[in-house]
Amino acid sequence: MPTESAMNGGVGTESYAKNSIYQRGIVETAKDIITEGINKNLDIEKLSSTSVNTFRIADFGCSTGPNTFIAMQTIVETAWKKFKTELSDSQVPDFQVFFNDRTSNDFNTLFASLPPERKYYAAGVPGSFHKRQFPKDSLHFAHSSCTLNWLSVMPQEILDNSSPAWNQGKIMYSGEKKEVLNAYALQYAKDLDSFFKARAQELVCGGLMALVVPTVPNPNHDLSSITFPSYDLLGTCLIELAERGRFDAAKVDSFNLPVYYTYPNELKAIIEKNQDFRIERIEVLNIPSKHHTNPDPKAYSLTQRAVFEGLLQEHFGSEFMDELFDLYTEKIEETAVLLNPKETSMVTFVLLKRVFRMT
Amino acid sequence: MPTESAMNGGVGTESYAKNSIYQRGIVETAKDIITEGINKNLDIEKLSSTSVNTFRIADFGCSTGPNTFIAMQTIVETAWKKFKTELSDSQVPDFQVFFNDRTSNDFNTLFASLPPERKYYAAGVPGSFHKRQFPKDSLHFAHSSCTLNWLSVMPQEILDNSSPAWNQGKIMYSGEKKEVLNAYALQYAKDLDSFFKARAQELVCGGLMALVVPTVPNPNHDLSSITFPSYDLLGTCLIELAERGRFDAAKVDSFNLPVYYTYPNELKAIIEKNQDFRIERIEVLNIPSKHHTNPDPKAYSLTQRAVFEGLLQEHFGSEFMDELFDLYTEKIEETAVLLNPKETSMVTFVLLKRVFRMT
Repeated sequence: MPTESAMNGGVGTESYAKNSIYQRGIVETAKDIITEGINKNLDIEKLSSTSVNTFRIADFGCSTGPNTFIAMQTIVETAWKKFKTELSDSQVPDFQVFFNDRTSNDFNTLFASLPPERKYYAAGVPGSFHKRQFPKDSLHFAHSSCTLNWLSVMPQEILDNSSPAWNQGKIMYSGEKKEVLNAYALQYAKDLDSFFKARAQELVCGGLMALVVPTVPNPNHDLSSITFPSYDLLGTCLIELAERGRFDAAKVDSFNLPVYYTYPNELKAIIEKNQDFRIERIEVLNIPSKHHTNPDPKAYSLTQRAVFEGLLQEHFGSEFMDELFDLYTEKIEETAVLLNPKETSMVTFVLLKRVFRMT
Repeated sequence: MPTESAMNGGVGTESYAKNSIYQRGIVETAKDIITEGINKNLDIEKLSSTSVNTFRIADFGCSTGPNTFIAMQTIVETAWKKFKTELSDSQVPDFQVFFNDRTSNDFNTLFASLPPERKYYAAGVPGSFHKRQFPKDSLHFAHSSCTLNWLSVMPQEILDNSSPAWNQGKIMYSGEKKEVLNAYALQYAKDLDSFFKARAQELVCGGLMALVVPTVPNPNHDLSSITFPSYDLLGTCLIELAERGRFDAAKVDSFNLPVYYTYPNELKAIIEKNQDFRIERIEVLNIPSKHHTNPDPKAYSLTQRAVFEGLLQEHFGSEFMDELFDLYTEKIEETAVLLNPKETSMVTFVLLKRVFRMT
């Protein structure tokens, strides 16, 4: 079953638009490195020799805003200045930005909140970024922030009680059970491969791609050190709801979070398998602590709710969501998981260039 | 005040998606003439000499579907066949369709109902078609059906009680008061001029534009013969609601339907003032009676509701809408306006070509 649910829509209390400060911090941090990347790696002369009337940018997994607008403004302004400096005024192209996300994304909210003073023509593109969404050779810049950790489907063996990878009673992989981790990792590599194959068709030769990828540190020898206390806690809450008789315990066995956190070495290896892109830059982003402070339990719970509620209510039913996230908030308070975090998550930035075709 | 409200969203009982059979009949009727127009007037050789990798089509005022999908499929299939016949396989471009409507349009419903088997990449573009919405020289085909009768704003003098054009107690122009008609006609000409100026920038030279325009017959000498019994009836209902104390009578004076029905001679004259387009074909569409039968009063009332409710509730408040349209349905039954229509509305088809620039 493909995972089709998107971030919470609208602009209400539980919306992604109102509960994505953490993700915004990442976007803010990536601004400088994206600006540098464009200035250094965007070959205006080569692009304009193929008569670019329109410079087309796509944000893959844009959600409802406002984070995507910050990222797109950075790219448009930097590229615009570079064109302006290196070409005559009449050769400066128009800019068009395509906001892509799953079809279930709340595009109405996205469109209603587009910055009125933007310097680009805007369009929304519904559909999974694991497939083609654009005509051949039609994009000059692709961007994606905090989205490539989502799997397109859950690997079957994780849901199969006869498989050694059966993830009973858990909703996330953990290093303890290697088969589960491997199933996640294999699906991730497949998904990234689909992503790169699709983008290789859509990007013009010389086009750039900036990816901001949620990762964990390179494991030394011990994969079991990779843990996600806050997701494990969410799993505990689901089990408790099952014990309260809200749904069968088997419901928890058949639910898994379709997210995987790769690590820089693995990410690099996956990219290098693809011959269409060259890595111009790869590095771990240094997210300043102001973007990284532990919010209060309620705010943290809302952030997770904005991201995972669609998925959870599809599986467990929308009637349990308030109870689930109230319990989650309580448990976060009790376990002090946020006050004393065993922090393993980090963010890796990659800048890629579509290499010239050998045909 | 610009008119920003769109057709009723969603797929429920009062939605445009469920209440646009009449408009669908027009789209169905236009299919053949559009196919002919593409086959005869689309100059594949000239277009491909400017290396078209992507053939880009925009539907201006697409609403929520499904009518727009029928029109877009006709255009894509016909153009695709023509490319396929006249060029080698490797030169056949990808197709990209842009669905444009006001920002308040329900794009979520539009995206969720996109035909899964479509042969084009889809994108939504929010914003008024009276302004630029696309990069320069980026479109090859523009389409618009049953939308150009909408004014961008109501002319001020119609709302001004010191003006001879004050439209007191009415919600639509009528030939009786020439000043009102003239104010509508003047705004229409301005709006069409903006529309053509914007499209002239967006369409490539040689690009085509197919317009299906709601019109009335050319008036002989008597403009007062132009009447809209069904709109007048809606006005009567609003006055009756004011008499019932639902709102002040002045509310009706300050409300007017921002729609104007041009006539073929006037439309032709407006287009010819614009030097950027050449008229390839202009004719009145012969809508077969199967698309034109008088539906029952309830269905007719729902069609009007799907189109005008957004506008009406913005002005009068959403709490009166059920009462208003119940009364409207009753009055349609009583006056037999549909059984014995004084039919003046018709539809004019125009095919335009973006002429080559003189620069």
